[in-house]
Order: sequence, then structure tokens, then C-alpha cells
Amino acid sequence: MVLSDRVLMGPGPSNLYPEVISAFTRPLLGHLDPEFLEVLDETCDRLRTVFGTENSLTLPLSGTGSAGMEAAFVNTVGPGDVVVVGVNGLFGERMCDVAQRLGADVVRVDAPWGEPLDPGAVVGAHRAPTVIALVHAETSTGVRNDVEEVARGKGDALLLVDAVTSLGGIVFDADRWGVDLAYSGTQKCLGVPPGLSPFTVSDRARARLKDRPPSWYFDLGLIARYVEGEGGRTYHHTAPVSMVFALHAGLGVLLEEGLENAWARHGACGHALQTGLEKLGFELVAPAQYRLPQLTTVWVPDDLGGNSEADVRAALLGRYGIEIGAGVGVMAGRAWRIGCMGHTARMRNVELLLGALGEVLGR
Amino acid sequence: MVLSDRVLMGPGPSNLYPEVISAFTRPLLGHLDPEFLEVLDETCDRLRTVFGTENSLTLPLSGTGSAGMEAAFVNTVGPGDVVVVGVNGLFGERMCDVAQRLGADVVRVDAPWGEPLDPGAVVGAHRAPTVIALVHAETSTGVRNDVEEVARGKGDALLLVDAVTSLGGIVFDADRWGVDLAYSGTQKCLGVPPGLSPFTVSDRARARLKDRPPSWYFDLGLIARYVEGEGGRTYHHTAPVSMVFALHAGLGVLLEEGLENAWARHGACGHALQTGLEKLGFELVAPAQYRLPQLTTVWVPDDLGGNSEADVRAALLGRYGIEIGAGVGVMAGRAWRIGCMGHTARMRNVELLLGALGEVLGR
Repeated sequence: MVLSDRVLMGPGPSNLYPEVISAFTRPLLGHLDPEFLEVLDETCDRLRTVFGTENSLTLPLSGTGSAGMEAAFVNTVGPGDVVVVGVNGLFGERMCDVAQRLGADVVRVDAPWGEPLDPGAVVGAHRAPTVIALVHAETSTGVRNDVEEVARGKGDALLLVDAVTSLGGIVFDADRWGVDLAYSGTQKCLGVPPGLSPFTVSDRARARLKDRPPSWYFDLGLIARYVEGEGGRTYHHTAPVSMVFALHAGLGVLLEEGLENAWARHGACGHALQTGLEKLGFELVAPAQYRLPQLTTVWVPDDLGGNSEADVRAALLGRYGIEIGAGVGVMAGRAWRIGCMGHTARMRNVELLLGALGEVLGR
Repeated sequence: MVLSDRVLMGPGPSNLYPEVISAFTRPLLGHLDPEFLEVLDETCDRLRTVFGTENSLTLPLSGTGSAGMEAAFVNTVGPGDVVVVGVNGLFGERMCDVAQRLGADVVRVDAPWGEPLDPGAVVGAHRAPTVIALVHAETSTGVRNDVEEVARGKGDALLLVDAVTSLGGIVFDADRWGVDLAYSGTQKCLGVPPGLSPFTVSDRARARLKDRPPSWYFDLGLIARYVEGEGGRTYHHTAPVSMVFALHAGLGVLLEEGLENAWARHGACGHALQTGLEKLGFELVAPAQYRLPQLTTVWVPDDLGGNSEADVRAALLGRYGIEIGAGVGVMAGRAWRIGCMGHTARMRNVELLLGALGEVLGR
């Protein structure tokens, strides 16, 4: 079967940097090969730069972004621990589910989907939670939550942040803000395929990690003995070598461009896309001040000329090879999610999408 | 940094089939793209053939082989459930650790490292366990355990088998034997990089899967709604698309060769390697009847001419670019593990290793 060549403008994955594809073609190394360990170390260094941190425990976790979420909770909370979760979209909901399965006492602080969380409500929800958790960039709604403001009021709690769709696309500054645990995914603004979860843990959080958490695979204490290798590397599981090569290359592209320049590029593309969508008559879901440039959510227009919203997405895919995302959760069938992330975040893709969407909708 | 091109003859990863490297170079597809779902479906079909099963729930899990182990236990056992584990190496030990963290009541049945398990002792260890678990091919010792014989006596228990190093290298016949859950890794006899865990669940086991297991990421009920997609695909986590392309290609190579032929190739290479090692004066760890062809463990000779065992491995790596594995657990420093798996399982690599080892040891 000959597969298509897509322009990936959904909520992730995004298109790959060419250098990432090249990195996949090099012969494999063993996970304990001194040369691979150099690549891994350099990958962790690059992740520190991208997260804005000097955390020693910074690494690519061997799973997707959702694995990062699970690892963050399983190492910090257990039965009876109080976790405050800000919920204004699918991934905040998921955090509640993950924490509840671990026996945590979850205190939800809701905001409507499409609106940002109220930082004051989040930090004021409980006197002394073990963890305060929120999503930085809600992939389900295109809304940015104010992590910095929540961090200011976190008190003694650990601050756990989902940076899956934010990392590399907008400012993320773990150390300056005071983020204790953060995880991301490789397939959004980093321009790498899905499969790894960039992960960082502050020294403050590290001192409180659960001893012998219920998950062996995500036990950060054991993983650290391989990744950091003080006094020799201790095998834990076999690292996903090719995916680490790919991430190493993607981060190399990002850092050669410069983080600030990459943020500016995502910002410019997002602005052009959003302006163009409004000109086409679309209503944007997120309020301007909290609107993500890298992921835009629009309400599906009432009049689609007799087509369903799925027909429109199928037309974009079939006629132009462009993937955009459907709405999820309370927005299923009512919204579209248009990503412009990583290597996809180019003006040529913005122009293409606006032209194609206009043509398909007859506007 | 220019990286080396290795001959990977450790306990995994092994060298990649060229077709796997090609598969990595194709542009990415989204995880909900109809074309990707076709590739995923075909990958699951190919896995059914390789596992020897018609299990509907057969899939590549989004983590390494160790993730497969965790998923197998987390979906089947919880606090108070009795799990009988056969332990004759590192991975049997790990099974105990994983199950204990989940609160299971673990009944160990030990055999010395380097010896096979006694199937009668395993099935006779408890009157009515929830799960009986064992490793088919112990990567730490090169010993094959008799899964078929344990399956015969499993009674009402679910039989959970680690097929990480066996799948594709020696006969594995899930349905005929009566295996209920099995997981593997991509980086051994399948010739694909580490990062996915081929996984299969019998209908019998499926009916007993835990509702709402403590792990969200490994919840097979949720994963099935994406992978099987009866009544539409429900997003769970973003599938590792590029790794699925790679696995699809590797399985394609394997099945075009034919499973029986691949087993024969691993068998012939292993036999030649083991005969050659004995000619060089090495003593093999595993008894002949239970010796894996794809992974050979030898005792480190007493006389290394003043070199340490690590010096010898470093010389093979430095002078010939050949990786072999160190001993682990009770065999650390005392044994070497020489793999001949996947694309590495070629007579030319056997000859090379024997020649290089003879030269380094001055034999």
C-alpha cells in the first residue's frame, strides 16, 4: 500500500523536521553503548534548555505524553493524598481519572471548556494539598492556563504541569516559575513522532518521590539509575534507542533555530491563521488573551451547505491531504482543532489551510 | 558526533532489517488517519500470526517489553490475588516485583539461574491461583522454559507468559498451548528497534480483565476501544506512529521469510555459534535441551591473560564494533550473553564473532 503524504494540522502529531527523519536512518546502537549514552545525555541537556530548568532528573520517558502524565502522578501521590486538579478540558479530566485510580483524594476546580482556569480558585481549593496539577495548553480547547500565577500560590504543594502541547511552542520556564514536575510529548511543537515523553522533576519534588510506587515501569527512582548513571548505569528497561535519536535531532533543530525564534514562529503562524479564520467568518473558541497560537479551536459553522462537519474534514484530507482535528468531549461535533506546531508551523501551511478551507466551504 | 555502526550481538537490541529503516523514512500520518488505521490493523494481523493466535485483542502496546509485563499484570491482578511466578532469572524476579507492587500475593517457584523451571512445581504451587506467570526465554540466562507443559496444568488460572526474547526466534504457539496473556519486545528476534510491546490476550482472559485498573495508560479496556475500533475508534493516547510503521515492516520481512524458516535460521545460527564457542573452550551455561539458539550464555573463562571480562567486551566493541552483553544478577561479572536475533541472526555474524573472540582471547 502506498501511503499518503499529509499536511498534519490536527492537534498532533505534526509534521516531522527533515533532520528527524534522517536521524531514524542511522544504524541502531545498544542502550548501554557508550556512544548511545552520550546521545542520551545530550538529549537530556537539550530537554533542560527547552523546559527552562537545571533539574538533574530530566529525561525522555519511554512512552507517549499520556505515559508522562501517569508517571508524574504515580511517583507523587497514593491513597489518601489530596490532589487539586484544575479542569477546563479533556486532559484536566484525564488527570482526575489517573489520580483517582491511584487512590488519591481529588479536589476538582472546574472552569468551562474554552475558558481559562482561575488561578486563585486553584490554589485556594484546599489548605494543604500534596499536589496541585493543571494543564498548561489544553489540547482539547486551545486555551492556555496561567501556570506562573498558580505556581506563585502553590505553597508547600508540588506543582505538576502538563506541557504536552506547550513545550517548544510558547514560553515554558520551569525553574523561574517554580514547576515541580512537568511532562510533554514529542509529537506537538517538537516536530518528532509520538512515542516519548520529555519529563522533568525538581529537586524539591525528587526528595518527595514515592518509594516503591505501584508502577515498576514508571518508577522514577529506578529510571534515574539508568539515565543519570552516577556510579555506573543500572539497566532498568531497554531505552527506545531510535526514538531517542529522533528526539535528539528534533531538539537540535529547535535549539539551532533558538527557542525564542521558535516561539515567535509559532506565534506568527498562529496569529495569521486566527486572523484568516476570522476573515473567513469563523468564531474562535478561546478568548484572545488565553488563545494558544499553536492550536486553534473554532466553532463549526451552522451552515455547511448540507455537509456534516466530518464531510468537511474528509474533503480537506481527500482533496488536499490536510488533516485537521475533530472536537472532543463537550465539543465533539461542534468544534474543529487546527494545529500549527513543530515543522508544520510555517506560513505556507497557514496559507494552504485557509485557501483549502475557503474552497471546501465555498467562501 | 559521528556514531559507530555496530554488530549488535548482545541480549538486545539486535540489528534492524533494512526494510525497518526504510519504513522510518516515510512521512508521518496522524493516529486517526484511515490510512494509518489500515497499517495498524495489518500490524495486529501480523502479530496474530507471529503469536500463533486468533485473539481479537492483539496489538502493539506503546512502551517497551517491560511495559508489556506491567500491562499484563496490572489488568489481571490486584490486592490479594494469588500469582504463582516461576523464577529462574532476572525477568522472573521482575515479575514478582511488578505483581507485589500491585498488592498481589506472590507465590514464587524458584529454579537455579541457568536451569529450567520444573513445570510440575509451577502448576502445583497453589491450589487456585488467579494467574500463573513465567518467562518463556530467560534473557538473563539463555534458558528456555517449557510453557506448553505449564499450560497443560494451568487449570482455571490465567497463564501469563513473557515472550520478549522468544517471539520470532523459536516456536511460540499461544492458542494451541493455551497461553492467556503474552507480551514481547520489538528489539529481539523481530529486528525492530525497542519501543513497542507486541501483546495478546485470550478471550478467556479478556472476560476477566480488571475493570478500572490502577493504571490508566495500560488500561486494556480503553486501549481496545482505539485499536479494535468496533463502532468507531475512540482516542486513548496518541499511537507511536513511526514505531508502528517500523514494526509493520519488520513483521513483513519475517512473514515473507516465513515463521518456520526464521525459526530455522535462528536455530542454525545458534547451533553454529554454540558449537564454535565450545571449540574455543567455552562452557555454555544452559543445558542442551533448554538452550536458546537466539541467546547464548557462556561462563567467562578464568584465564583472560590479565584482562577483566569488561576489557574483553570493550576490545570486541572497539576493534570490531561488536557488542556482546555482560552477565546480570547472580551472573554479573561471571557470564557473557551473546545474542543472535532478528537481522543479526546470520552466519556471517556467527563467523565474525567467533573469529573476533578467538583473536581477542589469543585462542
